[in-house]
Amino acid sequence: MNRVTVHSFKAALCLMLSGMALTPTAWGQDQELMLSEGSIEHAKMLRDTAMQGSMAYEIVESLTTEVGPRLAGTAAEARARDWAVAKLESLGFDGVRVEPFTIEGWERGAESAELIDPYPQPLSFTTLGGSVATPDSGIEADVAFFATLADLEAAAPGSLEGKIAFVSHAMQKTQDGSSYGFHGRLRRSGASIAASKGAVAILIRSIGTDSHRMPHTGSMRYDPEIGKIPAAALSNPDADQLERIHARGETMRVRLNVQPIFTGESETGNVIVDIRGTEHPDEVVIIGGHLDSWDLGTGAIDDGAGIGIATAAAKLILDSGKRPKRSIRLIFWGAEEVGLLGGFAYLERHKKDLDKQIIGTESDFGAGKIWQLNSRVSAEAQPLVDKMAELLAPIGVAPGSSDSPGAGPDLTPLVRAGMPSLRLNQDGRDYFDLHHTPDDTLDKINPHDLDQNVAAFAVFAWLAADTGLSFK
Amino acid sequence: MNRVTVHSFKAALCLMLSGMALTPTAWGQDQELMLSEGSIEHAKMLRDTAMQGSMAYEIVESLTTEVGPRLAGTAAEARARDWAVAKLESLGFDGVRVEPFTIEGWERGAESAELIDPYPQPLSFTTLGGSVATPDSGIEADVAFFATLADLEAAAPGSLEGKIAFVSHAMQKTQDGSSYGFHGRLRRSGASIAASKGAVAILIRSIGTDSHRMPHTGSMRYDPEIGKIPAAALSNPDADQLERIHARGETMRVRLNVQPIFTGESETGNVIVDIRGTEHPDEVVIIGGHLDSWDLGTGAIDDGAGIGIATAAAKLILDSGKRPKRSIRLIFWGAEEVGLLGGFAYLERHKKDLDKQIIGTESDFGAGKIWQLNSRVSAEAQPLVDKMAELLAPIGVAPGSSDSPGAGPDLTPLVRAGMPSLRLNQDGRDYFDLHHTPDDTLDKINPHDLDQNVAAFAVFAWLAADTGLSFK
Repeated sequence: MNRVTVHSFKAALCLMLSGMALTPTAWGQDQELMLSEGSIEHAKMLRDTAMQGSMAYEIVESLTTEVGPRLAGTAAEARARDWAVAKLESLGFDGVRVEPFTIEGWERGAESAELIDPYPQPLSFTTLGGSVATPDSGIEADVAFFATLADLEAAAPGSLEGKIAFVSHAMQKTQDGSSYGFHGRLRRSGASIAASKGAVAILIRSIGTDSHRMPHTGSMRYDPEIGKIPAAALSNPDADQLERIHARGETMRVRLNVQPIFTGESETGNVIVDIRGTEHPDEVVIIGGHLDSWDLGTGAIDDGAGIGIATAAAKLILDSGKRPKRSIRLIFWGAEEVGLLGGFAYLERHKKDLDKQIIGTESDFGAGKIWQLNSRVSAEAQPLVDKMAELLAPIGVAPGSSDSPGAGPDLTPLVRAGMPSLRLNQDGRDYFDLHHTPDDTLDKINPHDLDQNVAAFAVFAWLAADTGLSFK
Repeated sequence: MNRVTVHSFKAALCLMLSGMALTPTAWGQDQELMLSEGSIEHAKMLRDTAMQGSMAYEIVESLTTEVGPRLAGTAAEARARDWAVAKLESLGFDGVRVEPFTIEGWERGAESAELIDPYPQPLSFTTLGGSVATPDSGIEADVAFFATLADLEAAAPGSLEGKIAFVSHAMQKTQDGSSYGFHGRLRRSGASIAASKGAVAILIRSIGTDSHRMPHTGSMRYDPEIGKIPAAALSNPDADQLERIHARGETMRVRLNVQPIFTGESETGNVIVDIRGTEHPDEVVIIGGHLDSWDLGTGAIDDGAGIGIATAAAKLILDSGKRPKRSIRLIFWGAEEVGLLGGFAYLERHKKDLDKQIIGTESDFGAGKIWQLNSRVSAEAQPLVDKMAELLAPIGVAPGSSDSPGAGPDLTPLVRAGMPSLRLNQDGRDYFDLHHTPDDTLDKINPHDLDQNVAAFAVFAWLAADTGLSFK
């Protein structure tokens, strides 16, 4: 046969098959993957419906407008939980509940920093989350300049006595955000390293990839063996400025005053709702995003987007006229930004039913499109993950690694405890432009990109919940 | 002749002519335009040299780094004048001088604003230049929303009693910045209009085209007949947020506290230096930029760029081995941002030699490339302006209007007093993204774009100073 003939034959076959409500082949696939009848067609329908427009943006708009910033453990985060319960109930979800837990609260206070010598000028900066305060009158000290964290680590003990350490290592953009771990160490651990050399405070170049006067906050931790010093991040343009002055051979003197407050034991919580499964309701497939945000912006890309995506996907399934065999659990995680505390609290509370946490994924990398699917599941379940990838390929998702554990930050405790995982990787090239800055606001989100995320979450949640395969 | 033959003949002629040090035609052009011998070739050389790299960026880097923000009338602006004198002398300019004058000083103070009802959250905003303070304890009031200034103007007298007026009109991008006049009226005059209706304060959407958490400051004026109320600008994302809440039908309540200080009579000044002309040294062709900046950024695009461009052009001429017939006067204008006060002071001081101010142009529209040449000169001088346009066409400048008065903000008083004018219009599509914000920093400047500006300024200054034609 020539090609034209083959083509015509296939076209005729396709036309014939598409005319049937359920093809023998599709049903065969459903059976093979231990899905209910028509399950794959249902997943496709969910995908296509989401792509035509989901309610994800509407949800982010509501959260960022009606709550705004919602730092973990604050009254604002409590308002976010109230918003969440009311929103989920208004969408028709039953059994919405809060699993409360407490954290050590921290809130930003007044903060000011200025270069006082050699070229007096204010600095655009912010206190890092968890930092101690300066004395009320602030700190005034010469600056010890370090290009990298490694340079700071190499400084001689005592060499920073009475000085403010400044580390200027610049983060570069990556699609998968993979350099955040490396660069983020400066933010997380820099203070104690500087303190161990005698520094009285540390300033870092923001862990961020923009060039705006926007400092990036984020959490830091102290080594319990070392005295605590205040820690703050300069915006990238301000770090550039200090680099230029340093390059002139000048000694810089900075005045720093930060007055964060430790607010003691503070209430937070995870907001949870299930779409109850028909056959194994106690087995749950988890999707979600985190409800808390940093205090500087309104938490649109971090992580209003995740809340919107996961909720819109769940709502699509809720309204789809079918229920999966297992339950789909939608979780709005609390207190993520201050150490994945919602994830740890959930693990603690659900230790006894760990084997019922079948698989999960979280959306917490902004509002960009998904470009890759990574996973780590049993050999038995791999064909189902392959089927998910096949269904997502038309909307721009390529299969990635099938041996990559990780399902998003808040699921890390569960994954470490053995839960199988799947991650729908978003394009994060611009994520660290906005991450943890005042600029994380709704205007940065493209609604159509959210819809593509919703499509992928709906396909994952539906198929993972509707199969009888074991992921473990 | 066919085209190939024409082409070959022309090519041969070009080759022949280019081999001559000075073509009879060029010399004829020089004579016709009352230029010294070889003047046009010299202008081309200046242009080509600038395009290969000028020192403009180096100058902006020095000013923004070593001085930083330099608000009119402050110690920082005085440091900028010291920097200017030292920089110009180090570049080999003779006779650098400051023409001092005084202004009524104003400085930004502590400022905070928050939405307290219905959705409590802090607002990103800044006080407008010239605004009065709130009471120490701030103002707390309901918000009256207006989509446009026209809507505010249409409000009934007394209808804003006890309220904070918020006007949300959004500026759009234009290449020539022409909508700044229309939209800027809200900033300049909004406070007195709102006060006339009983408002206790006014918030405006920033006069700016970005979508970052960056408020745009800028000067405002009170109608002396109307009581003064505090005036401040929200960033665009914050204005969006209030619009969304207003659209929900909610009454918004805002707490505003701004504590600017009127610092009384304050010293400022214009920094001036001449490249002395050989035949008519008392006749001056003016180029320059303004030395002061707003306090929030480091004044890189507004107007470090103008300082760098004009200085680099003057330096190129200074080092070119030739002097023009008239003097070229380089002016770093003081106190531009607070009402073109340097321009008015210069006019006042130079009233007696107004006829010696031959023509001028200022660079004060950012760091983008020049795309258009506008002018208004005598019929006698028009051929010279046409020649300038011809020389600038290869570097992307198109002739614009020959009946468009205007030479840049600080020259407005002189132009109104009758001085001929020429303007090298920069592409300003992105100018109002950064204008008057904390984000106006060096990283936003492309050095190569500055070089193109330098080329145009050098061609203009050289030819206008070297001709014997009258522009008037």
